[in-house]
Amino acid sequence: MDFIIVGERINGMFKNVKKAIKEKDPSVIEELAKKQTQAGAKYLDINVGTAAEDPADAMKWLIQTVQNCIDTPIAIDTQKAPILEAALSVVDGRPILLNSARGGVDSEIETFVKLAVEHNGSIVALTMDASGPATSIEARVGIGGQIIEKAMGGGLDLSKVFIDPVVLPAKYGQEQPRYVLESIKQILEFVGGPDSGLHFIVGLSNLSQMAKEKEIRELINRTFVVMAIAAGLDAAILDANDDAMVDAIITAEMVLNKQIYTDSFLKAGRM
Amino acid sequence: MDFIIVGERINGMFKNVKKAIKEKDPSVIEELAKKQTQAGAKYLDINVGTAAEDPADAMKWLIQTVQNCIDTPIAIDTQKAPILEAALSVVDGRPILLNSARGGVDSEIETFVKLAVEHNGSIVALTMDASGPATSIEARVGIGGQIIEKAMGGGLDLSKVFIDPVVLPAKYGQEQPRYVLESIKQILEFVGGPDSGLHFIVGLSNLSQMAKEKEIRELINRTFVVMAIAAGLDAAILDANDDAMVDAIITAEMVLNKQIYTDSFLKAGRM
Repeated sequence: MDFIIVGERINGMFKNVKKAIKEKDPSVIEELAKKQTQAGAKYLDINVGTAAEDPADAMKWLIQTVQNCIDTPIAIDTQKAPILEAALSVVDGRPILLNSARGGVDSEIETFVKLAVEHNGSIVALTMDASGPATSIEARVGIGGQIIEKAMGGGLDLSKVFIDPVVLPAKYGQEQPRYVLESIKQILEFVGGPDSGLHFIVGLSNLSQMAKEKEIRELINRTFVVMAIAAGLDAAILDANDDAMVDAIITAEMVLNKQIYTDSFLKAGRM
Repeated sequence: MDFIIVGERINGMFKNVKKAIKEKDPSVIEELAKKQTQAGAKYLDINVGTAAEDPADAMKWLIQTVQNCIDTPIAIDTQKAPILEAALSVVDGRPILLNSARGGVDSEIETFVKLAVEHNGSIVALTMDASGPATSIEARVGIGGQIIEKAMGGGLDLSKVFIDPVVLPAKYGQEQPRYVLESIKQILEFVGGPDSGLHFIVGLSNLSQMAKEKEIRELINRTFVVMAIAAGLDAAILDANDDAMVDAIITAEMVLNKQIYTDSFLKAGRM
């Protein structure tokens, strides 16, 4: 399938990853890298979280551990320049995604664009500025425009830019999910459609945090992703091993004729 | 929720309904009427199918049986004028949906508009003409425009018109599902958006008929409906007792802020 799943699991906020980082135990990380890749992840997100005293060192160890066991591209998940630079110093030349810069903070987005060009990588750029996330359609589209301008100005092809219109928790209001869908449509229109190469990505976990039950959270996340795909979303950071989620994504791609129907289309979509 | 589910189950193509019609046994029909209403159906579709030697008589019996046991509005499912007129002769004044006329056949759509105005009902109008269903976006939007014209010309408010852009079986091509989504968007734009009151409806079963397994058919139908809701769909003829389908529809409405989130939103959406 065309859809780009960024597997979220190698993140120090998960207990087993935190423990693996502390003990420098590669087996947990290797298993997560393989499991997510088999489930269809196109990138493996790597985030140290708060697991390490020396986060730059931990980031390097995580990346090297993943690179030693699998060819899957990686998403380097940090907003801190020193950690990002440490990470880039050990990347072995595979495709990388720099995740993520605030699109409304000039110095940050410029740094990410520059590093992406230097290392032939892609970037995730959030519709956020120094004061926080954009909460209206207009603000999201406005920062989306700035991101596109910074990328083009810095020589980064739009096919290497993933705009994240920031899915917000329920406390920001019930209109937010619809605003995200509408922002994707409007930015896509602004840039001239999918032929521009521009990508849209979301991190889903915020969306359903108001729901207590896991089943309901998964239902909400899965339903939203399918609607966002209809609006133009083509990437997401999520649990690649949530089979119902990945089934829904592959089916949505089939509805849009980006995935051919065969009796084994759900399996084919994971390859 | 705002979404209008038309429960498909009282249809002579189902064995138990066929038998009930032959034996004039009301219990099966009554149970289907109650079960679908409890599951959130806003209309109960009534279709004789090929179950009866005297289809007009069978239609009257089915309608009276439903009316005797429940207040739920009904969708009279026939394209044949004599059966439709027999049906209308026994309707007790509850809201009705005349399902369905071919929008591209002038005499047919005009008859349905006239009967809907006379009986204060709504109509389903298909993007079909005498030669068959529209298979391109342009043809669907064209017939959609004709339907809108015929309704307005005949004095039928657009809030009483359900356009069905006709979901086609796979043999018509893999582009068809996307064409349906795009047609809804374009007709909605043509008519000035959701404030026009115009409804969009689909019958889903054709979409997934290429899949052998029930689970896969349900996944395809459910995913498509959610994407269509994102495009503007607000009604569907379907199995109201497919819980995963109805959960997905309610969740899609919540994403669009048409259904408020509470811990019991899935239950609330069925009321």
